[in-house]
Amino acid sequence: MRIRNVKEGDYSDISPVINNWWGGRDMSDMVPKLFFVHFTETSFIAEEDGKVVGFLIGFLSQTYPDEAYIHFAGVHPEYRRSKIGRKLYEQFFSVVLQQGRSVIRAVTSPVNKDSVNYHKRMGFELEKGDKELNGIPVHTHYDGIDQSRVLFMKYFQKEETR
Amino acid sequence: MRIRNVKEGDYSDISPVINNWWGGRDMSDMVPKLFFVHFTETSFIAEEDGKVVGFLIGFLSQTYPDEAYIHFAGVHPEYRRSKIGRKLYEQFFSVVLQQGRSVIRAVTSPVNKDSVNYHKRMGFELEKGDKELNGIPVHTHYDGIDQSRVLFMKYFQKEETR
Repeated sequence: MRIRNVKEGDYSDISPVINNWWGGRDMSDMVPKLFFVHFTETSFIAEEDGKVVGFLIGFLSQTYPDEAYIHFAGVHPEYRRSKIGRKLYEQFFSVVLQQGRSVIRAVTSPVNKDSVNYHKRMGFELEKGDKELNGIPVHTHYDGIDQSRVLFMKYFQKEETR
Repeated sequence: MRIRNVKEGDYSDISPVINNWWGGRDMSDMVPKLFFVHFTETSFIAEEDGKVVGFLIGFLSQTYPDEAYIHFAGVHPEYRRSKIGRKLYEQFFSVVLQQGRSVIRAVTSPVNKDSVNYHKRMGFELEKGDKELNGIPVHTHYDGIDQSRVLFMKYFQKEETR
């Protein structure tokens, strides 16, 4: 398995599989082509024998110079439990730390318990929200009316970035 | 009418009106909240008497240090023909030129003739594609299978950025 940066041509491979990998949920609109053109240094693909088995789309915050953001990440259902997600996250951490970022953020839906648990295992903290849902702090209406979200943050020591 | 940078709280005002402004097309997923958090310096709102009448979402390309990208822009249907769009674009041009960007890109669907003509009037060139559709150069399958797109570019002299 190797991890490499995304390139523009990857979009046509990734976009059609997203809804499959998410069990039929219509998610592909969340990953527009612009990320494969303009955010290639912080977006990665995991390949096994030339086949895409995972990807991570992220960027350096333009507004917050200390922050980087993981927008979307997924692993082929048949390749889960093989630490591909962890390797993609670690590659992202490494690249954004080199760019002087010390706070990494991500957002998920509270219904996506796998994602909540995954981010906890990866060392993310859950940002205090305005409400708790089954013990999980959520930000109500974060992504629109009735669209609560869980906000994750992972802090690195500034020294680690040198 | 005044133009200001977007802030996080604007998302809840803008997101619900997008589909209305686009005549019922389901477009709001194309403008996720992340732009209102992490790309605020290059995203703008036009307000008239405290009411949002237009917006532009754009960013500095992370991959191409000369480029900036306009992702989405819209004007309230009742406020069109009042140069709000032009003022939003000019504000974006001004800010990204100050950041040393000399190429501005945008992408649209060939069916959106208003957008094609608008970008021509705003001085954008149409990038040569692999096909022509009603005299318009298109990039076939750009945004997925059968999703042709028109690619726009506007060049500024590097000197203008000083």
